Amino acid sequence: MAQIKEVIPNAFVFTLGNEVVHGRIVNTNASYLGRRLSILGFNVLGNISLIDDIKLISYFLNLVIKKFKPVVIVTTGGLGPTYDDRTLEAVALATGKKLVINQDALKSVKEKYEYAGLELSEDRLKMAYLPEGAIAIPNYVGTAPGSWLELPNEKSIIISLPGVPKELTEMWEKWVEPRLSTISPKKFMYETKIRIEGVPESTLAPVLKEIVRTYSDVYVKSHPKGHETRKPIIEIYIMTYAESKEKAKEIVDEVKEKILDLLMNKGIKFNAVK
Amino acid sequence: MAQIKEVIPNAFVFTLGNEVVHGRIVNTNASYLGRRLSILGFNVLGNISLIDDIKLISYFLNLVIKKFKPVVIVTTGGLGPTYDDRTLEAVALATGKKLVINQDALKSVKEKYEYAGLELSEDRLKMAYLPEGAIAIPNYVGTAPGSWLELPNEKSIIISLPGVPKELTEMWEKWVEPRLSTISPKKFMYETKIRIEGVPESTLAPVLKEIVRTYSDVYVKSHPKGHETRKPIIEIYIMTYAESKEKAKEIVDEVKEKILDLLMNKGIKFNAVK
Repeated sequence: MAQIKEVIPNAFVFTLGNEVVHGRIVNTNASYLGRRLSILGFNVLGNISLIDDIKLISYFLNLVIKKFKPVVIVTTGGLGPTYDDRTLEAVALATGKKLVINQDALKSVKEKYEYAGLELSEDRLKMAYLPEGAIAIPNYVGTAPGSWLELPNEKSIIISLPGVPKELTEMWEKWVEPRLSTISPKKFMYETKIRIEGVPESTLAPVLKEIVRTYSDVYVKSHPKGHETRKPIIEIYIMTYAESKEKAKEIVDEVKEKILDLLMNKGIKFNAVK
Repeated sequence: MAQIKEVIPNAFVFTLGNEVVHGRIVNTNASYLGRRLSILGFNVLGNISLIDDIKLISYFLNLVIKKFKPVVIVTTGGLGPTYDDRTLEAVALATGKKLVINQDALKSVKEKYEYAGLELSEDRLKMAYLPEGAIAIPNYVGTAPGSWLELPNEKSIIISLPGVPKELTEMWEKWVEPRLSTISPKKFMYETKIRIEGVPESTLAPVLKEIVRTYSDVYVKSHPKGHETRKPIIEIYIMTYAESKEKAKEIVDEVKEKILDLLMNKGIKFNAVK
């Protein structure tokens, strides 16, 4: 992966909320965003889930910005009207900005409550406050707008979205991804899997070691699906990025053939299943 | 939560592997461990998922140990025989220890491969290396042993387990949890939920704010399940720790009644569903 990391911009995901950290829900937002960012060509280094604590969240945000200089940070959760929805306060604290009324956010929040015949209380108004300079991301499903905050000095964008999955995915697909794809590394990903039966992962290990020595910009990983010694089934995942989808496929296919060749040359007996 | 955090020891979870960060799998290990640690009475502050990169993993491990002094850190993934299974190298690097052959781990790995008629290759032997001073955790399902590493100076324990969920859960329930429960804070958790229909989350917000001001050691959180203005359904989660399960239940029940009272006193119309 060493070479990939030098050319592909880093990204980090923050999934925020006690319910995530304490396991009351399974974190599908993390896998959704990890996947979407990877397909766009970003090198997602990590996903950090934290409880709803402003200091804790802003500490890790600040650290990640300074230390890893990610081009994109996506946060989910903590945008709603309740006392513990404080993600944007943490973003503001981490980036040294103020929270200010955002006119687009205000308009959207106002309209939604007016339509429902509800007044704009203090807790509802809170959702119209974004970090200074942020663009409001429309929420097509729920109420709280998202925030797109560019940090020119750090060359980072912090994108904050709600934690409710259907709000998050709609906002991501309709608004965020079209914008992000224009600044994405324009690298194309191709991936494939081979399923190999009858070979323990530990037998495969030296073969994969040899592969990654030769193809340093291809990501190869084995996933045991059966039992190491009793009934070995290994899924080998092969992925790379290239200037075109065709080029990426070509490299991945070459690696796939090479793995099967190496296994045969070493006299290892296996069944390769597509 | 302020008061809780002072009395309840912190914990952190690390779920390691590119497949987790890049969203090729949903991270059920994170929710499993977050939940089990919370029930044991630990205050889980966060879950950090990172790609298989020794420097990156050891950087975050070291940081978390130094900055948050967690009593327990649990890592999952990266214990297998392949080139990218390097979690214990990262643990060793973060704690300034060497990786050494652990006799119990060696015995177990040896037996498993001998039984299968396979020799102890370099990649298989790798699984017998644990950080100096660590105790090997038996793997009842797969091959790679886990590692229980106590750091007396930091008053921390780093518990490293495999990423395969059925190996992880067996090792956790049979070996780790019985040991951890003897050092757990002996606080008992009680939790409940109320489902409230017809009230937007933003209307509930001031009520919950008032509750957490009065009951600072009770955790209260609202989860929107319907639509904020069109069809509001809110699930309110109430949780606390106390010296006994009965005491914890008593506090939670009191808070539950108080929330319903406050809603009624404010003239807010709702249906409370169990």
